[in-house]
Amino acid sequence: MLTNTRLIRVQWGDCDPAGIVFYPRYFEWFDACSILLFEKATGMIKKKMLETYNGAGLVLLEARAVFKIASHYGEDLEIETGVTEFRRSSFFVHHKVTKAGVLALEGFETRLWTVRDPEDGDKIKSAPMPAEIRAALERT
Amino acid sequence: MLTNTRLIRVQWGDCDPAGIVFYPRYFEWFDACSILLFEKATGMIKKKMLETYNGAGLVLLEARAVFKIASHYGEDLEIETGVTEFRRSSFFVHHKVTKAGVLALEGFETRLWTVRDPEDGDKIKSAPMPAEIRAALERT
Amino acid sequence: MLTNTRLIRVQWGDCDPAGIVFYPRYFEWFDACSILLFEKATGMIKKKMLETYNGAGLVLLEARAVFKIASHYGEDLEIETGVTEFRRSSFFVHHKVTKAGVLALEGFETRLWTVRDPEDGDKIKSAPMPAEIRAALERT
Amino acid sequence: MLTNTRLIRVQWGDCDPAGIVFYPRYFEWFDACSILLFEKATGMIKKKMLETYNGAGLVLLEARAVFKIASHYGEDLEIETGVTEFRRSSFFVHHKVTKAGVLALEGFETRLWTVRDPEDGDKIKSAPMPAEIRAALERT
Repeated sequence: MLTNTRLIRVQWGDCDPAGIVFYPRYFEWFDACSILLFEKATGMIKKKMLETYNGAGLVLLEARAVFKIASHYGEDLEIETGVTEFRRSSFFVHHKVTKAGVLALEGFETRLWTVRDPEDGDKIKSAPMPAEIRAALERT
Repeated sequence: MLTNTRLIRVQWGDCDPAGIVFYPRYFEWFDACSILLFEKATGMIKKKMLETYNGAGLVLLEARAVFKIASHYGEDLEIETGVTEFRRSSFFVHHKVTKAGVLALEGFETRLWTVRDPEDGDKIKSAPMPAEIRAALERT
Repeated sequence: MLTNTRLIRVQWGDCDPAGIVFYPRYFEWFDACSILLFEKATGMIKKKMLETYNGAGLVLLEARAVFKIASHYGEDLEIETGVTEFRRSSFFVHHKVTKAGVLALEGFETRLWTVRDPEDGDKIKSAPMPAEIRAALERT
Repeated sequence: MLTNTRLIRVQWGDCDPAGIVFYPRYFEWFDACSILLFEKATGMIKKKMLETYNGAGLVLLEARAVFKIASHYGEDLEIETGVTEFRRSSFFVHHKVTKAGVLALEGFETRLWTVRDPEDGDKIKSAPMPAEIRAALERT
């Protein structure tokens, strides 16, 4: 499985009055990490990738996070992202967030590969992920 | 079950280059809606409630959203929030987001009632939710 | 001068570890308040207004805030917004933020009315604001 | 003048439906960049610095940004931050944001060095910045 690792230094403005990361920030990071993974797999930025593949987005079906340890201002997090499973058109993204090597939280996104409907460009429809992108994501 | 309803007009800055709500915004709204529900149940703002009950927060164990319909700039959303189940110390919050009466997405949070550890004020420990708050949340 | 007033209840997630509003949140509110003012003046949402007037946006040239009093979680703010001056194509937006009637901060935005370049739809150029919108904004 | 440089890759979620950075994001980056500059000058994270110097924060008096060029998803920005002027207790922070060497926008913050009031720990008062921090910031 291809993985992408992103380092996050928790900033003052990421934290709430309890001094810990305000939890929607984690989902902001997950979204960016998912995109960065696809950019790594394809060698294109998201916009270019969608143009190249007649794509209309990586539609989000479900997002979930399981929290273990809170994180605070000034701490360094490492987010490791990979696609763990492929269905017909949907796929599962996993984000493992560690702090000094200890698991802090995990994120899970179920997304759908979609393309523009050839009969109506304003509509989108699900489609299997192009084989070369899937192969790149499965690469060990 | 006591519910709290919050109306959200989707703002320009809530949306991404695809013109739809950037999904972490939903979790920002869920967090605020959970707090507003407890404020409605107790008649106190969160800070006052935590002081009154020696509380240390509504610790988040898990957050999840299941997306049905994307929402766009200028649309009006209605978020209805309630606590659907109580365990020993944890409880489940449900957020139902509708747009013109149609289900757009659902949010789920598993949270833990916590209090300051009487033997070490810097530590927190889980505890059953005070009976009167639970009763207020179960009120029909 | 036409004004629009928006009430903001400061949420937990708007605040930083010092317990006060993280200042970029004010600019998020200012941006939304500027748009809401134009929506009030034209009776259209921003997207419809831009379509109707061949417009390409309310380009921001400068943004500024002068802070008087910090605000905290649970407090209620009132933001009153109006256009205070018109130049050839640019105009000045003023946001007055009060808390229980006391001035908390002021915001200032210099924006530019722009339209799609008729010779190249991908380009934009500045233009005087349509007379009826200006008249609506100047209405007392 | 000591400067700190931070690289920002513009993420999808930083951008609005026009495909450009939603402007409050710049102020989020400015706030983090100001803190990072002080961390570089003192060798401490903000929290430690405030404890060490009986400090209560870098109170913001005014924030301003002047926009030249819009930035889009996937672009790389460089933010160079320094303190350009010192008054009795206040000081001026300058942020220069460039894209491929071209000035994209500038940010300006007026901040106040404050300490806890020795007669009332809940209050803060302005004070001259400690000489060694000022010297570090003026270092060429």
